[in-house]
Amino acid sequence: MRNLLDPTDLTVDEIDQIMDLSLDIIANRQKYNEVCKGKKLATLFYEPSTRTRLSFTAAMMELGGNVIGFSDANSSSASKGETVADTVRVLSCFADIIAMRHPKEGAPMIATQYATVPVINAGDGGHSHPTQTLTDLLTIKREKGHFDNLTVGFCGDLKFGRTVHSLIKALKRYTNVNFVLISPEELKLPDYIKNDLCEENIEYTETHSLENAMPKLDVLYMTRVQKERFDSEEEYNRLKNSFILNTDKLKSAKSDMIILHPLPRVNEITYEVDNDPRACYFEQVENGKFVRMALIYKLLQWKSENRKTPVQKTIIEGPPCKYSRCISSQEPVKHLYQLSENGIYRCIYCEGPLEK
Amino acid sequence: MRNLLDPTDLTVDEIDQIMDLSLDIIANRQKYNEVCKGKKLATLFYEPSTRTRLSFTAAMMELGGNVIGFSDANSSSASKGETVADTVRVLSCFADIIAMRHPKEGAPMIATQYATVPVINAGDGGHSHPTQTLTDLLTIKREKGHFDNLTVGFCGDLKFGRTVHSLIKALKRYTNVNFVLISPEELKLPDYIKNDLCEENIEYTETHSLENAMPKLDVLYMTRVQKERFDSEEEYNRLKNSFILNTDKLKSAKSDMIILHPLPRVNEITYEVDNDPRACYFEQVENGKFVRMALIYKLLQWKSENRKTPVQKTIIEGPPCKYSRCISSQEPVKHLYQLSENGIYRCIYCEGPLEK
Amino acid sequence: MRNLLDPTDLTVDEIDQIMDLSLDIIANRQKYNEVCKGKKLATLFYEPSTRTRLSFTAAMMELGGNVIGFSDANSSSASKGETVADTVRVLSCFADIIAMRHPKEGAPMIATQYATVPVINAGDGGHSHPTQTLTDLLTIKREKGHFDNLTVGFCGDLKFGRTVHSLIKALKRYTNVNFVLISPEELKLPDYIKNDLCEENIEYTETHSLENAMPKLDVLYMTRVQKERFDSEEEYNRLKNSFILNTDKLKSAKSDMIILHPLPRVNEITYEVDNDPRACYFEQVENGKFVRMALIYKLLQWKSENRKTPVQKTIIEGPPCKYSRCISSQEPVKHLYQLSENGIYRCIYCEGPLEK
Repeated sequence: MRNLLDPTDLTVDEIDQIMDLSLDIIANRQKYNEVCKGKKLATLFYEPSTRTRLSFTAAMMELGGNVIGFSDANSSSASKGETVADTVRVLSCFADIIAMRHPKEGAPMIATQYATVPVINAGDGGHSHPTQTLTDLLTIKREKGHFDNLTVGFCGDLKFGRTVHSLIKALKRYTNVNFVLISPEELKLPDYIKNDLCEENIEYTETHSLENAMPKLDVLYMTRVQKERFDSEEEYNRLKNSFILNTDKLKSAKSDMIILHPLPRVNEITYEVDNDPRACYFEQVENGKFVRMALIYKLLQWKSENRKTPVQKTIIEGPPCKYSRCISSQEPVKHLYQLSENGIYRCIYCEGPLEK
Repeated sequence: MRNLLDPTDLTVDEIDQIMDLSLDIIANRQKYNEVCKGKKLATLFYEPSTRTRLSFTAAMMELGGNVIGFSDANSSSASKGETVADTVRVLSCFADIIAMRHPKEGAPMIATQYATVPVINAGDGGHSHPTQTLTDLLTIKREKGHFDNLTVGFCGDLKFGRTVHSLIKALKRYTNVNFVLISPEELKLPDYIKNDLCEENIEYTETHSLENAMPKLDVLYMTRVQKERFDSEEEYNRLKNSFILNTDKLKSAKSDMIILHPLPRVNEITYEVDNDPRACYFEQVENGKFVRMALIYKLLQWKSENRKTPVQKTIIEGPPCKYSRCISSQEPVKHLYQLSENGIYRCIYCEGPLEK
Repeated sequence: MRNLLDPTDLTVDEIDQIMDLSLDIIANRQKYNEVCKGKKLATLFYEPSTRTRLSFTAAMMELGGNVIGFSDANSSSASKGETVADTVRVLSCFADIIAMRHPKEGAPMIATQYATVPVINAGDGGHSHPTQTLTDLLTIKREKGHFDNLTVGFCGDLKFGRTVHSLIKALKRYTNVNFVLISPEELKLPDYIKNDLCEENIEYTETHSLENAMPKLDVLYMTRVQKERFDSEEEYNRLKNSFILNTDKLKSAKSDMIILHPLPRVNEITYEVDNDPRACYFEQVENGKFVRMALIYKLLQWKSENRKTPVQKTIIEGPPCKYSRCISSQEPVKHLYQLSENGIYRCIYCEGPLEK
């Protein structure tokens, strides 16, 4: 049985398979109308997310399957103090596959340890959101035709933006991709990701200027500056309007550049831009449905033997993880830490560093 | 593509088509079991409404279709600051038709400007609720056989009751309908609707006495006095018990009068009345399901060419609408005002007057 | 038409029918895939309960039917002051069968008086939860093969635990069942149930020691100590850790004893116990789905003539029931009291004693 916790769980070859299946689904909708008939997807959303939840729901329905679940933690057993471990064991009796969104990091990984059906991470706090990454990849694939040889700009909140982190991790595995990181000083891409890029000799540049970066970009990935990521409202207000994309700034862009955004947007892309043919963020939404159809279908098919051979990693048991957003301290699990590239042990659930 | 924002969007002929289709659905349930197979309805309910939401849901299921959506704003992207414009563009990727309930007036009209699928207004604030009107019409059609030559009494809150306003607008297009308006002084039908009746030479009378009005009525439409429409609790308490229908008051009514109510009721119809054969409000609920089946089916079929030729109206751009319940100031739209019959410009979203 | 309000609504023979049908469903899943095609279940959950709601939902879907409903009172018409009586009459227009969870006792009984479709009590306050009892029975049936000649221990909160009360009522109808009641002094089984056991000459023993009771048990039914049942947090904290089951205490148990728990658990069974082959609480969850499939299917088939002849009971009309958790005072119903075994009149809705 296979799960999807992080985009890097998938090999490049597996991502290709999902892209190809998505394209086949788009080309031959009828063929897939009933392939999941009699199957059920459980959408366990411990925090609200209309877009992601309804995308999964629509995807399963278009495969002929059914959907059960809840859309916020208050209408779940979590309010009675039940662990994620118990909830997914229960849901495994009702559904054939689970999609989980949780505010705590590592919750979907806990789920994979207890569920008897495949689990898809539909977003765990600021940690990972792999189906968004697959969505982004499918959109690039459909619009540009390939992943190699692209200059990809990321603009806005590169510090907290998990969609950015994940897409960088996914794209750096392709040939000659280079990154332009456009953000205010306070919201720069975290060092550990930049260190990874350095170590793998992947080219990137950092800038505060969207205008300067614009002309060289093949892909411009805009992100929302989320209020909830800031310590104070004042700080948020000072930064939220930085790096707004409007038709004026677009003038210097390539004619075949594409604009992506994970949505929802607040004001970081003005509404006139929507009419520009380079704006692809609503196409992205539809691609999200198709790629989730492909993913659900694949995960229901893939068997364990299909699992990629995991890299042998050093794992030790340690004290409970102290990161406030990590779920592990609330769950009946061992506190495990994995040796990462730079000699630091990181919690296997949230990837936070081991604090002794 | 057609939408339904207001009952008057439909010509008398189109209403006849929907009535006829509803009757055919009632007579031949099997025939319609799978006509929407593979289609999805999105129910976007920004405020809770069990009855209306479940009526749409049941309707779509009885046509063989699926339903996705949310049942309150907290579990939607609205809580992240997303506009209705963006939400419906997203939902257009997931569903084939949208039913929207929103506390702000004009929200469904905004939706029609951005959605790529048909939109049904399932109630926008105090403004319009066209599927309730179709429900009322189908009930009158089934119970009385026709719309002409009826004396229709409306009782209760005629000031804020949008179902009353809409049904009056719909019925006045038929021959020899006359209205009896029964309400306390404070909750009288607004002048602009009475002016319309005058201009079109439609007979109406106003009264404070349900007893006096009773003997002449063919249809008695009761309404709920809603707490949320009042400025103070005191005012509400003084008026809420006015105009309660009980078995005693029914004694002077015609034997074939019918009693309608949009539900939920609080106490404006006593429970003994439920056993009177003239009580039709639960039949009304079932008719609501049938008429929504007909409407969904029609809207998925009707093409743009089928749209009635709009009356050419004078429209100007103006400042943002100042009415607190109008949605337009939060959305990426032009502030448009339309010249109405009495020389006043009215906001196209909420129909509130232009304040300069 | 038949309803299920309390496990004792079902005769021993009817319970056997439901058990047999459940076993047939388990053995022949395909056969039941579409038996409820075109039918709709309404899940009216006035308080959240993921497990029970999703169990009903999955059950109906696995019979080929559809599900509509709401998952908490806020997204229902109850927030507008609608009675349960009116809500179920409305829902009877949309669904073929209703499952209702309500915090107030007697709400599902009110529902049966107004609904025109079968009603299943999915839990009403601390009163009754018959589908949990059927779930427990099916698990005992599958694991032990029979209900006779069993020693059944109940551990934890026997005072407020409605699942305990119901299962005792159901099991005492079989031959040579005896009960071991393991609880702290404060949470002992209520006298009225023990009186019933005495009158029917059914053997039971009470103890404070789980260890002492363990060796003789064939079935151990663990229960959650629910915070909301206590007057103070202090009292809760003092008692909550009593009677925790761990692998150590299990050492003296029979090798074929089975451990049940209605879930969710908090900490009354440690996680190591999950790996013991005697732990059956997750099997119980799956059995809950199967038994609900059987029940839904039966209730859609059973006609009124199939109703067991009710015992003729003395019923009087009285003042409104004063028990704060009883729903009857909010609903348009007569306040009826039934003479119980010990000469006390009890409210027919909540079974609370008549206070004059």
